[in-house]
Amino acid sequence: MTDAPSRRRERTRGARSTGPSLAPLPRLANPWAPLEVLSAEQVERILNAAFQILEEAGLEIRSPAARAIYAAAGALVDEESQLVRLGRELVEAQLAFTPERFVLHARNPERHLHVGDNVVNFGPVTGAPNIRDQEGGRRYGDLEAFRNILKLTHRLGVLHWQGGIVVEPVDVPVAVRHLATYQAHIECSDIVWAARGIGGIQAEDAIALSAIEHGCTVEALASRPTLMTVTNVNSPRRVDEEILDNILVMARHGQCVVITPFTLMGAMAPVTLAGALVQQTAEALAVVTLCQLARPGTPCVMGGFTSNVDMRTGSPAFGTPEYVHAVIAGAQIGRRLKIPVRTSAVNASPMVDAQSTYETAFSLQAAILSNSHLINHAAGWLEGGLSASLEKIIVDAELLRNWAEILKRVEFTDDDLAVEAIKGTAAGGHFFGASHTLARYESAFYRPLLSDWSNFENWRDAGSRNATERATTIWKKMLTDYVPPPLDPAVRDAVADYVARRSAELSAA
Amino acid sequence: MTDAPSRRRERTRGARSTGPSLAPLPRLANPWAPLEVLSAEQVERILNAAFQILEEAGLEIRSPAARAIYAAAGALVDEESQLVRLGRELVEAQLAFTPERFVLHARNPERHLHVGDNVVNFGPVTGAPNIRDQEGGRRYGDLEAFRNILKLTHRLGVLHWQGGIVVEPVDVPVAVRHLATYQAHIECSDIVWAARGIGGIQAEDAIALSAIEHGCTVEALASRPTLMTVTNVNSPRRVDEEILDNILVMARHGQCVVITPFTLMGAMAPVTLAGALVQQTAEALAVVTLCQLARPGTPCVMGGFTSNVDMRTGSPAFGTPEYVHAVIAGAQIGRRLKIPVRTSAVNASPMVDAQSTYETAFSLQAAILSNSHLINHAAGWLEGGLSASLEKIIVDAELLRNWAEILKRVEFTDDDLAVEAIKGTAAGGHFFGASHTLARYESAFYRPLLSDWSNFENWRDAGSRNATERATTIWKKMLTDYVPPPLDPAVRDAVADYVARRSAELSAA
Repeated sequence: MTDAPSRRRERTRGARSTGPSLAPLPRLANPWAPLEVLSAEQVERILNAAFQILEEAGLEIRSPAARAIYAAAGALVDEESQLVRLGRELVEAQLAFTPERFVLHARNPERHLHVGDNVVNFGPVTGAPNIRDQEGGRRYGDLEAFRNILKLTHRLGVLHWQGGIVVEPVDVPVAVRHLATYQAHIECSDIVWAARGIGGIQAEDAIALSAIEHGCTVEALASRPTLMTVTNVNSPRRVDEEILDNILVMARHGQCVVITPFTLMGAMAPVTLAGALVQQTAEALAVVTLCQLARPGTPCVMGGFTSNVDMRTGSPAFGTPEYVHAVIAGAQIGRRLKIPVRTSAVNASPMVDAQSTYETAFSLQAAILSNSHLINHAAGWLEGGLSASLEKIIVDAELLRNWAEILKRVEFTDDDLAVEAIKGTAAGGHFFGASHTLARYESAFYRPLLSDWSNFENWRDAGSRNATERATTIWKKMLTDYVPPPLDPAVRDAVADYVARRSAELSAA
Repeated sequence: MTDAPSRRRERTRGARSTGPSLAPLPRLANPWAPLEVLSAEQVERILNAAFQILEEAGLEIRSPAARAIYAAAGALVDEESQLVRLGRELVEAQLAFTPERFVLHARNPERHLHVGDNVVNFGPVTGAPNIRDQEGGRRYGDLEAFRNILKLTHRLGVLHWQGGIVVEPVDVPVAVRHLATYQAHIECSDIVWAARGIGGIQAEDAIALSAIEHGCTVEALASRPTLMTVTNVNSPRRVDEEILDNILVMARHGQCVVITPFTLMGAMAPVTLAGALVQQTAEALAVVTLCQLARPGTPCVMGGFTSNVDMRTGSPAFGTPEYVHAVIAGAQIGRRLKIPVRTSAVNASPMVDAQSTYETAFSLQAAILSNSHLINHAAGWLEGGLSASLEKIIVDAELLRNWAEILKRVEFTDDDLAVEAIKGTAAGGHFFGASHTLARYESAFYRPLLSDWSNFENWRDAGSRNATERATTIWKKMLTDYVPPPLDPAVRDAVADYVARRSAELSAA
């Protein structure tokens, strides 16, 4: 399987264009010390309270298999209430097995996902029931929309993994839906993708298909993980059986488990930031402990999704000041525990406008500056996650591409200091024609994907289109220009055969 | 002159409302270490090159009076070319007089402007020739628009000074225009305002009127400064006579001079970030030196406005990655020199949409995280400064108010850790009715000015209005509800008399 020629073409095309280069961006790293909002003492107070919750209240673990694993390790398990209480020593002993950093392997060897340290990774919107765009309006997701989002995120080059259920393809029967999405992931892109986060069968099929994609056995995947599952605690303090089944299959196969409590302050968690963080930490630690008990060394990521609600309506809010503090604090807690952290770039806006942009900008900024490792929902999320928007994908990609430039270290040579160029330019003159300028201007500046810097008259005469309207033109052209990544025909066929066989089995069941 | 009752009313009204509180926000401080993009060694390389420019190339100083001051201090002055070259020792000796921190005094004693340390100050758009709003479209500014912007920025409570020429009132004759704007500043708000940044007469009238506003002599203002002038170098390396006249009047009266080179990379400055920073630093230092020579101890602020241009069209761009690096680097250079720093929150978008929002968000974030002290254009700037937009004022105010919350230190009590509330809430339950929630929910979260967190159906049924359209409703209501701040009638009359007398004199001249 060789895909080098195709990628060379992509790079050349990007470099020649006068527009933005869409060649895949190199691995991103945060060059700065992480931004912190808690003192070390505050982190310990939250941790102590979280351990107190695990010991004294515990979690409702709605899977007999998972309860048996906890019980065998010495947890206090009440089979009637299904409550599992965990001592601090038990949890800390398992945390010692949790890797501080790990790699998820992509089919494209240049796009492996490094999780940990100061590496920044972006993933697209996931979990949206609706698809939205300016032309088609708001409607239930389908497989075409699902594949279109994958094509865009592949083409944009700035997403580091493909997400999982980027939009719910409701035209595919539930029993076999996961198979269609996995096939789409393998066909539409060549970077890391995620299993559906609910159900054991769904995890098993993801692992089987990933082994086919990577040309190896399921057993071999365990030492060279490729997959993640991104799933939730049913906060407060409950984990459903289908989620536990999913987690246990992934963990037993050495694949990455991203566990995110859903702790909306004042609704599913205490109204205080500190209280919500206590609950978030306790819930995540319970699941990380289970993963390590199932298979020591399972790559785990602690998710944070703490935000506030509008206390008048109960509606969730995102990108708020409380959200920003929760993201940064959550990353601090993860660093203290030496577990990688997942956050999100999210908003609660009903449309792609100024609000959706500032809410996403605030949450994205917090996610990046906090040094979190997986930034989910970073392109296309709208309406608190109820819609995936094609225009929002383009707006967000512009934000992400700007950030990728901002995170580059500032370097300069003595020539870049331009002393001779400044001395050689007359007072009141300009540098347009200076040799110092001409030698550098083609690659001097970031070239935007979406931004329009025309003057008012030119912009008006071109139709007075706002950024959202321009984004429609961009995603449509990207879908037209889309070229699938290289895929060995034998692998493609084997994937199709597997999906056909399993679809028949699951439809008959 | 007592305005306490009015401010008490304002606070009470804010606290009772279910909407956002618009009471003036307390002084903002950045609780974090400043974000830095340059190493200490890189800062020194830039400084050394800047001093080399000052020594070997110098600045064209188009005022005989200013050249005489430089010459008397030992600078090399060429009267024919008007070039003034400054040795490093001369400049550094004057920098020693420049205050690292200072206070500009407002009529409202609760709204003094603290410049320096980690205090963050926001000012509105200034210098725009056009006014724009959704209803009136784009048109030349006038005095009504000027006063409306002042009323909004006063009412919003999140701006720390009133700006100067927030929009150009072209309906007032140029000769007397500054007088009308100063009168508006004094009548419409009670916080610090800025003199027009061009012309000696304009500075003298500002000082005379500020003395009337503050009930003191012009001489007394020098030891208790009230005013700033925000003005530019005509980069590269030229300062016009009218600007120098303005600066010298302000400096001699001990008022604050904010000097900002206009260093667009590739146009009025080298195409490289390092080169543009060298030029920006050299130009600003030349003017700071002049201010100290005119009056040692003059409060000065080093401005940075380095950004890139679209190299295909020459159009300026703002809020770009290059802009972000320039802002942060400029603040580092100011810290190294112990001079407060002015930056901006700006964009190049042709309308109030997603682009204007992310460009402003990027530049604002850089300005705040860099620990710069005066953040100009932070509400209402559009189209690279060619328009002041009333809707953009509202969108930006939401950004600023969010930042004011984000910058608050995270504090919590043991009760806030909510251990008992978590233990007392059933697994899978909710916290809506918990006593821990009920005791706190009213003041738990930031209340937005503009954000709409309705679900899709409610938002659609209410008219599907985007944030820009909602902003129109908000600014119109704010203008309707506007109440001017307290102003002693004797002061009001004295201001009107001065403006009438000087207008007659200047019209006759």
